[in-house]
Amino acid sequence: MKLPGQEESDLSSASENVPTGELDSGPGSGLSPDGPLDTDSRELEVPKDPPLFIQLNELLGWPHAPEWKETGRWVLFEEKLEVGADRWSAPHVPTVALPSLQKLRSLLAKGLVLLDCPALSLQELAEQVTRVESLSPELRGKLKALLLQRPQHLIQTPCTSPCWGSAHSREASQEEEAPLKEQHQNPRRQKFPAGAEAGAVLAGQLGFLEQPLGVFVRLQDPVVLGPLIEVPLPSRFFCLLLGPPTLGRGYHEMGRAAAILLSDLQFQWRVRRASSLHDLLAALDAFLEEVTVLPPGRWDPTARIPPPKRLPSEHKRLPSQLRLAKGPSLRRRTPAEDRHGRRQHAANPELRRTGRLFGGLVQDVRRKASWYPSDFLDALHPQCFSAVLYIYLATITNAITFGGLLGEATDGAQGVLESFLGTAVTGAAFCLTAGQPLTILSSTGPVLVFERLLFSFSRDHSLDYLPFRLWVGIWVAIFCLVLVATEASVLVRYFTRFTEEGFCALISLIFIYDAVGKMLTLTRAYPIQRPGSPTYGCLCQYPDPGGNESQRTSTNPKDRDDILSMDLGLVNASLLPPPECAQRGGHPRGPGCHTVPDIAFFSILLFLTSFLFAMALKHVKTSRFFPSVVRKMLGDFSSVLAILLGCGLDAFLGLATPKLMVPREFKITGVILNRAEYRLRKGAGFHLDLFCVAVLMPLTSALGLPWYVSATVISLAHMDSLRRESRACAPGEAPSFLGIREQRLTGLAVFILTGISIFLAPILKFIPVPLLYGIFLYMGVTAISSIQFTKRVQLLLIPAKHQPDLLFLRHVPLSRVHLFTAIQLACLGLLWIIKSTPAAIIFPIMLLGLVGVRKALEWVFSPQELLWLDELMPEKERSIPESGVEPECSFSGSDSEDSELMYQPKAPEINISVN
Amino acid sequence: MKLPGQEESDLSSASENVPTGELDSGPGSGLSPDGPLDTDSRELEVPKDPPLFIQLNELLGWPHAPEWKETGRWVLFEEKLEVGADRWSAPHVPTVALPSLQKLRSLLAKGLVLLDCPALSLQELAEQVTRVESLSPELRGKLKALLLQRPQHLIQTPCTSPCWGSAHSREASQEEEAPLKEQHQNPRRQKFPAGAEAGAVLAGQLGFLEQPLGVFVRLQDPVVLGPLIEVPLPSRFFCLLLGPPTLGRGYHEMGRAAAILLSDLQFQWRVRRASSLHDLLAALDAFLEEVTVLPPGRWDPTARIPPPKRLPSEHKRLPSQLRLAKGPSLRRRTPAEDRHGRRQHAANPELRRTGRLFGGLVQDVRRKASWYPSDFLDALHPQCFSAVLYIYLATITNAITFGGLLGEATDGAQGVLESFLGTAVTGAAFCLTAGQPLTILSSTGPVLVFERLLFSFSRDHSLDYLPFRLWVGIWVAIFCLVLVATEASVLVRYFTRFTEEGFCALISLIFIYDAVGKMLTLTRAYPIQRPGSPTYGCLCQYPDPGGNESQRTSTNPKDRDDILSMDLGLVNASLLPPPECAQRGGHPRGPGCHTVPDIAFFSILLFLTSFLFAMALKHVKTSRFFPSVVRKMLGDFSSVLAILLGCGLDAFLGLATPKLMVPREFKITGVILNRAEYRLRKGAGFHLDLFCVAVLMPLTSALGLPWYVSATVISLAHMDSLRRESRACAPGEAPSFLGIREQRLTGLAVFILTGISIFLAPILKFIPVPLLYGIFLYMGVTAISSIQFTKRVQLLLIPAKHQPDLLFLRHVPLSRVHLFTAIQLACLGLLWIIKSTPAAIIFPIMLLGLVGVRKALEWVFSPQELLWLDELMPEKERSIPESGVEPECSFSGSDSEDSELMYQPKAPEINISVN
Repeated sequence: MKLPGQEESDLSSASENVPTGELDSGPGSGLSPDGPLDTDSRELEVPKDPPLFIQLNELLGWPHAPEWKETGRWVLFEEKLEVGADRWSAPHVPTVALPSLQKLRSLLAKGLVLLDCPALSLQELAEQVTRVESLSPELRGKLKALLLQRPQHLIQTPCTSPCWGSAHSREASQEEEAPLKEQHQNPRRQKFPAGAEAGAVLAGQLGFLEQPLGVFVRLQDPVVLGPLIEVPLPSRFFCLLLGPPTLGRGYHEMGRAAAILLSDLQFQWRVRRASSLHDLLAALDAFLEEVTVLPPGRWDPTARIPPPKRLPSEHKRLPSQLRLAKGPSLRRRTPAEDRHGRRQHAANPELRRTGRLFGGLVQDVRRKASWYPSDFLDALHPQCFSAVLYIYLATITNAITFGGLLGEATDGAQGVLESFLGTAVTGAAFCLTAGQPLTILSSTGPVLVFERLLFSFSRDHSLDYLPFRLWVGIWVAIFCLVLVATEASVLVRYFTRFTEEGFCALISLIFIYDAVGKMLTLTRAYPIQRPGSPTYGCLCQYPDPGGNESQRTSTNPKDRDDILSMDLGLVNASLLPPPECAQRGGHPRGPGCHTVPDIAFFSILLFLTSFLFAMALKHVKTSRFFPSVVRKMLGDFSSVLAILLGCGLDAFLGLATPKLMVPREFKITGVILNRAEYRLRKGAGFHLDLFCVAVLMPLTSALGLPWYVSATVISLAHMDSLRRESRACAPGEAPSFLGIREQRLTGLAVFILTGISIFLAPILKFIPVPLLYGIFLYMGVTAISSIQFTKRVQLLLIPAKHQPDLLFLRHVPLSRVHLFTAIQLACLGLLWIIKSTPAAIIFPIMLLGLVGVRKALEWVFSPQELLWLDELMPEKERSIPESGVEPECSFSGSDSEDSELMYQPKAPEINISVN
Repeated sequence: MKLPGQEESDLSSASENVPTGELDSGPGSGLSPDGPLDTDSRELEVPKDPPLFIQLNELLGWPHAPEWKETGRWVLFEEKLEVGADRWSAPHVPTVALPSLQKLRSLLAKGLVLLDCPALSLQELAEQVTRVESLSPELRGKLKALLLQRPQHLIQTPCTSPCWGSAHSREASQEEEAPLKEQHQNPRRQKFPAGAEAGAVLAGQLGFLEQPLGVFVRLQDPVVLGPLIEVPLPSRFFCLLLGPPTLGRGYHEMGRAAAILLSDLQFQWRVRRASSLHDLLAALDAFLEEVTVLPPGRWDPTARIPPPKRLPSEHKRLPSQLRLAKGPSLRRRTPAEDRHGRRQHAANPELRRTGRLFGGLVQDVRRKASWYPSDFLDALHPQCFSAVLYIYLATITNAITFGGLLGEATDGAQGVLESFLGTAVTGAAFCLTAGQPLTILSSTGPVLVFERLLFSFSRDHSLDYLPFRLWVGIWVAIFCLVLVATEASVLVRYFTRFTEEGFCALISLIFIYDAVGKMLTLTRAYPIQRPGSPTYGCLCQYPDPGGNESQRTSTNPKDRDDILSMDLGLVNASLLPPPECAQRGGHPRGPGCHTVPDIAFFSILLFLTSFLFAMALKHVKTSRFFPSVVRKMLGDFSSVLAILLGCGLDAFLGLATPKLMVPREFKITGVILNRAEYRLRKGAGFHLDLFCVAVLMPLTSALGLPWYVSATVISLAHMDSLRRESRACAPGEAPSFLGIREQRLTGLAVFILTGISIFLAPILKFIPVPLLYGIFLYMGVTAISSIQFTKRVQLLLIPAKHQPDLLFLRHVPLSRVHLFTAIQLACLGLLWIIKSTPAAIIFPIMLLGLVGVRKALEWVFSPQELLWLDELMPEKERSIPESGVEPECSFSGSDSEDSELMYQPKAPEINISVN
């Protein structure tokens, strides 16, 4: 029997939620639910309770043709049989009427409770449960026969139509105790880890009973009860709720109540250890103590609540007495501790200064060396193959987009090839040596911005760009070395969300501004011909009058002759288009010769096409349409698909739109190598930069994504494609995250493929530039719309009463929120102005300025407000007493209830930076 | 004191939900909550219970500076004070922990309960409630002083920042009993109807108490308790829950529980009539009987549930014993009865055949005549003025769009003017005589389709269009007369959703197909100049060589001279653009003279602009941004704004895009009058058609919008702009609908204004045609995406487990749903084929074909399935026993729980038909 803690038994998220302190305090029985527990031994026990699958079989069709039918099932959420539609409902939060629970309690109180029943088969179990005094022997026999009757299960296979398991045979003899073929074929079976158990609730109205019959059985050893459960899991619990037809649907509801109880983790825990009816009822009462009540008249009980994104932690469910009695490790973490989980490397030895020169680097190299062989061995998994394909496509799209724009910004050619080569060489080198080999190096947004700033700076100051760039690269490398030597990366802690958002918003705005600006420049290059505009008309004039006229006429195609000849008679000129004219020795003359019509608007259309199509495809990922594999594909490759669509459209119309310019001859010439060399050196600087940051990172903690890795969306996607997730999970529950396949091979393979892609060059000349601008715009818009700053800017436009229920709005006055937003906007404006002046060369240092502004904000806002709107800076965090950090905890009317929500990881807001 | 039934007291939706049978059974006291009520007198009583505003004042700051603070308020939903953020939360469904309710019960059980307390002021009330045995005289004094202390209210005025009412003065003397200025200025006050009462719950921990103190007071007469309540409403209930600090936030939660109880309508009703503590506790128990329970561990209790769109009816809350004991009029309506509410005119005398020729018409005229004067007097309301403006704008947009397209389809000019004139004349005539004067006549989609079919038919058969059309109009009129004479409009009952959706989908598809098709035709008219295409070059040739060369040169602008002169020296020709060339006596020569570059793509851009902009503006209406007035404006005028934006863009670039063609001379000539005449005759036929349908409609029942009116979106908008809605309603509750201002003046005014608009003609020539195609596309897409048919087609693409929780999916097997959709798709395909053949002339009769298909479906689908997917046809409805119509009610495991959801009106799915 595998334990839930192991990797494959993946229902663990359900059972792992149970506080270990309470669960594993030994096989204590007769436990008073509110009494303090012995918690000292809590970290010693290992065996956790197995997950439980609950099934409700209802007795229907009485008195004509009574039969059992599975009408509900539970693991964490409820799935209900839609009787009319022959399908299972979507998983939803189970709700039940309070009286059903109370009726169940009184039925069990006077019913038969068998704890540790030794029955080994359904036959034996039926024997046991029918031994009720109130039943005559005849009725016992009838009831027993009924219990052995085979129930109907609706087994939905993903591909075929639903089939009613066991519907063909009504009677089950003892030989049929073995699980049926349908049960084994049930695809749901794979959802359960080894060791999972089942609980069966049988309920319904039974005409021959004179009084209600309630039986609760805990089997000593779990037993597969023949065809009772739709999956051949061994059953641990068995609950029978039958009665005369006076109550109507009451038994159905009682059955649901019993199933909901059994699916509750704390009830399960108590009832597994119960030794008497008293314990069972106490467990039920403990459950009732914790339920939330929806008042009638304000809530339709038939409405189904979809599973919440996050379940409340089982920690919180401990009664307060228990919580107080516990040791410090079960103490509830304060919100500050939790929110700053991802900054906890402040206390991490890997981010502690050694005080020696290069001390941190030496430490990191030592730490990593031992993992180096496994970094290659761990890659031997099929998942890595698909990750390589996916990340390769993303990398070359990125390289084409940014390389194309980069090349066009500098010397107008070769950009993409350089981008390929640079990415391949730098990336492969990084991948082999880096501390965090999952990071994908690529010409990302900030690099592009920096490069363009360098270029315009060198142009403005009449510097030779390439040597200038070389020197900058060398200086950057030296600077990074100094940073590594002085262990400066611990300063990373001072980059709060304020800083990240400011930087991200600036980069995004530069993207958007550039995309739109370049489109406008492009339309100016292909002027629109308005009526009466002077750029009309073009004539092909030949040098020597009366010369090779006859020759020309003969080469003209016949259908043109009648049109062109009438002019040829007049003068030694024709109306041939400029290229053909030049080809035949003429000179194009006239104001219209240099204008190419239709290109401007078609470029705008291509721009809009790639932008809107990429946006639409991105939304497909979160829509309901198509199977999830298709959705993921469409969403992940939205840029590639948008570019392909645009290329197709362009090729179909065959217009002379501006394309990516690719050198005709394929050389990797000295110039390129030279520039690739710079890139390598700069890359090495960049690499050292990243290296010194990366090697100081808490590498072993693969669960958190540190912010400076998230600076590139592709790295995040890379990690995402290498996620190890639980395959089996309760319906409605999100798969739980097990870790990431850390290795170096995928990255290496991606970069080798990228290097080979320079042979793709001939294809690149089919890509119109406006398409890339569209993707550029898409990236800017996507990045800026994902940060909290944007949400707060939008709040300025939303009337107070329509504002969404954001957590910080519950705790910070609106005027203060607006003030914070206004300060951020002002900073952004200032950065924009600096960017537009010669001072732009200090662009990378602006980040430090943002840190300073953030520091100054501590005089304007209270720590509580900053905690909600941003996060605290390290020393502030230490200087505030814990009680002060927990918002308003000194105030008795405080929202201690909200603190649960603060546990929500901020991670989704982090994959923001522009890639 | 006004009663809630009156128009101005608009919290009625809250109190009207209470079943009259239970509410008004007289001042019965000592009522057992489950016992049968005397319901015979239920329709005699009039006075309903006034609505109740509940406020929770919490005692905070003990022991340092105890003060009362309002931390929660309730009418229907809960609003919570966000203490940190100094704002009120959005209204949400109140949830409470079950133990809080139980603790409240036990506190009240041993507490002080004063029913019909005669106190006349807060002073007197404090005197009464402190007379508790357990308190020493000294503590009584302290408690009394505390109760008289003025509480803090957070009063949010819409424009200014939140202010803390009464925060300045801590002590309230007897003179301050009068309501304060802040209370009167509270904007919330306007939300309550006259007669509304308040309930005050005061809770908190109080150090000097040794045991909990629970007091419940029902005042004999409601009294304004000084500054206790944030609005100066008289209080009826007063609840005090104080105790030693051992329970912590327990008193806060108990206070919330008390407030939630008091805000429950049935609890209110019972407690208003309670005569003893026993009754009070019985009311609480009755409440507990009905609550829904959310299990812990599956639901985070701090999550806030937004108000549901629809509250469960109070009918459903009656205990089953009560329901059985009631008379037939309180019998729960079956789903069939409810879903078919809008078809209940089948049993309506107005839709019963008289059996006499024109019998229905005569009856209708008689019925309407008495209302005629009031149809004008009722229009004297400011709301009608804004309705006129809004509907006028919508009508001329419609007239421009359809008139433009109509004119272009037939004789290519004057379409818009005709549309204006026709709309004005027909509409005004209709408005003065019609049965349903709120219907706005306009050239809607079906009319346009019909017109185009007529035109192509006449062309194909070489008929003269105008006489042909006259004859068709006369025949239509005669046909309508026959229909009126034979009272055929009762056949309307046979048009189920299947028919409506088929027709709507066809019209929408024609719109979409035509819009895209016409755009493609347009781009073919302005060919794109590809590289090497023959349409290149144009020369201006002058007739007499060496003639007026000097004259031409002198008139040329100077900046052109240098370009043009080089060619002028060569030949008697120039490169002037064709219009200028012709103006100067030359002949444009060459293949490029007739091409206008850039127009094709710019037209596509305009087309996309108007389509996307109109779509985006429509979504603004349901977004959170901007105040609701602005949102409504932007949403309602989305087409107008999109057209204006497109016109601006077009004017800015000044390209020769195809515009609406408007006759230069302004004649209303014989031809137009003649055609207007046809239109009038046809309109008269149409009018009679509509008239005979309209006059038979249940006019007095203004609450339902009958389907054949909804065939025109503008009519719906007209009604919508004349809605009388409750201004005051509980926070979080949608305003309740009181009726529609039925009158004839608004329509008349709209049509007079439309008639006057023919003088707008000169403006129309600035509107590019592609913009109208964009709006055309927008209308088609909007219409087709609003019908259930489209949702079902989408289901084909959604994997079963991601399908939304649609009601019919709960009850009909997916394969049957898909079969129904496939049949509808097949019908649609058939209609499309018919439309594309000469048989298209029978287009209006296709509807009858759909009715036939629908009838045949009864052999394929069971009545239950049709009930969920469509609705039943009249005779079927009668022939099925009631129990058979209620889905699966013969099956004991049925979803009788769902039947509540079936009460949902289908109305929102009806405003589907194309404009």
